[in-house]
Amino acid sequence: MAIREWSIERFTHGVRSATIDRLVVEAPLQILARGVAVATVMRTPGHDEELVRGLLHAEAITGADTAALTCEQDELGDGFARVDLDPTLFAARGTISTAACGVCGRAGIGDFERHAVRVAAPTTIAASVIGQLPETLRHAQHVFDATGGLHAAGLFDLQGNLLVLREDVGRHNAVDKVVGWARQHTIDPAAHIIGVSGRLGYELVQKTIRLGCPLIASVSAPSSLAVEVAEAFGVAAVGFVRGGNFNVYSNRWRVV
Amino acid sequence: MAIREWSIERFTHGVRSATIDRLVVEAPLQILARGVAVATVMRTPGHDEELVRGLLHAEAITGADTAALTCEQDELGDGFARVDLDPTLFAARGTISTAACGVCGRAGIGDFERHAVRVAAPTTIAASVIGQLPETLRHAQHVFDATGGLHAAGLFDLQGNLLVLREDVGRHNAVDKVVGWARQHTIDPAAHIIGVSGRLGYELVQKTIRLGCPLIASVSAPSSLAVEVAEAFGVAAVGFVRGGNFNVYSNRWRVV
Repeated sequence: MAIREWSIERFTHGVRSATIDRLVVEAPLQILARGVAVATVMRTPGHDEELVRGLLHAEAITGADTAALTCEQDELGDGFARVDLDPTLFAARGTISTAACGVCGRAGIGDFERHAVRVAAPTTIAASVIGQLPETLRHAQHVFDATGGLHAAGLFDLQGNLLVLREDVGRHNAVDKVVGWARQHTIDPAAHIIGVSGRLGYELVQKTIRLGCPLIASVSAPSSLAVEVAEAFGVAAVGFVRGGNFNVYSNRWRVV
Repeated sequence: MAIREWSIERFTHGVRSATIDRLVVEAPLQILARGVAVATVMRTPGHDEELVRGLLHAEAITGADTAALTCEQDELGDGFARVDLDPTLFAARGTISTAACGVCGRAGIGDFERHAVRVAAPTTIAASVIGQLPETLRHAQHVFDATGGLHAAGLFDLQGNLLVLREDVGRHNAVDKVVGWARQHTIDPAAHIIGVSGRLGYELVQKTIRLGCPLIASVSAPSSLAVEVAEAFGVAAVGFVRGGNFNVYSNRWRVV
């Protein structure tokens, strides 16, 4: 349940081949306190009861260890955790959501999918450009990152030129900064692509779609939900960009 | 402002030496809509306006690009972003916080600091045990992770034996699962330590303190706030555990 198989195209030394890759599953778990949705967590299915008890404990919710708790999930891994706790305990924590978490705090991800607009532009990107992105990003990042602890995100044009690099301890934040930059400048998002240094999770794809970029590339692994949402909303999700090779997980026609 | 210097002890081939390391700064940015706190983001200071506009855009808040916005921060990097938007726009998003994000949704981190209990147990941990943790974790993880996309967290005893390993797309979730497991078993947290595969951020230290473990070790870099909070609450934060070498960032007396 923690792994999903997915058809991809692999680019190795400039040659494309169809193959099957295994994706780590990312799926929402909605927590209901006596029937009231109090939180949604994006997680890898498995050990859901431990996850819920652990995060209730981290939040210092009284009864975290002992409250009756049942977890269920469907075939995609989307789950519900029903806990016998007063929902006002959660409100009393004074918690308000933050956008930094993408889906955090939503009672499900349907809200995004209802409001998002598909990236419809027929933009294609040369495989040779994608293969160079990590090196460009890393080179620019090395100038700034003396700590080894920063994630990087960059906005590139279709020739692979880096327009802006932003770094942050948070992967989401680095992308938010790039999006904020892009929105304040006169650029056509459909003619630009995003590169990131970290794992390609659902929230980063969500932000890419919202900006209207046709491709996001990462040196690391994508999650199942990242790939599924990218496929549905017109974005090419590219992972494991290393040494000029990479995998295309969705909307493969964009890579030429 | 994105980097802070910090006195550490470095263990190299079993020899300890005092030195100065550079930490990436992690600090809260509180977003106020017409004076009402609507979100707090843990971020690396810098480009705060881009960050706020980018995440308002990601959240589809009307006026994200054009609303008047001023950002300020103090010498530690703690910041405020004041945006001229109706606070009910945020409430209308139906957002509720989730514990998975640690501080997410708090109007600052003071709430945690007021309620958390210092890890007071005089536990010490042998340097040789710490040096072995990543290999033990990685070996156990390789059994499960076929995707390259999973973070791992483990609970170890003071001899370095792995009691439980949990994996997740989310670093926080992997630790929450371990904490949930620990709370459901009869173990003394003061005699156990946590090892993680990813970056050592503030929230992971927060969860370690809440559980009552005296040490958390990572193969990667800690953030400034992670180290500061660990120091204040009795936890030894250990980073860059690689090839038997590592850095101790706080409560160095625990490593012997």
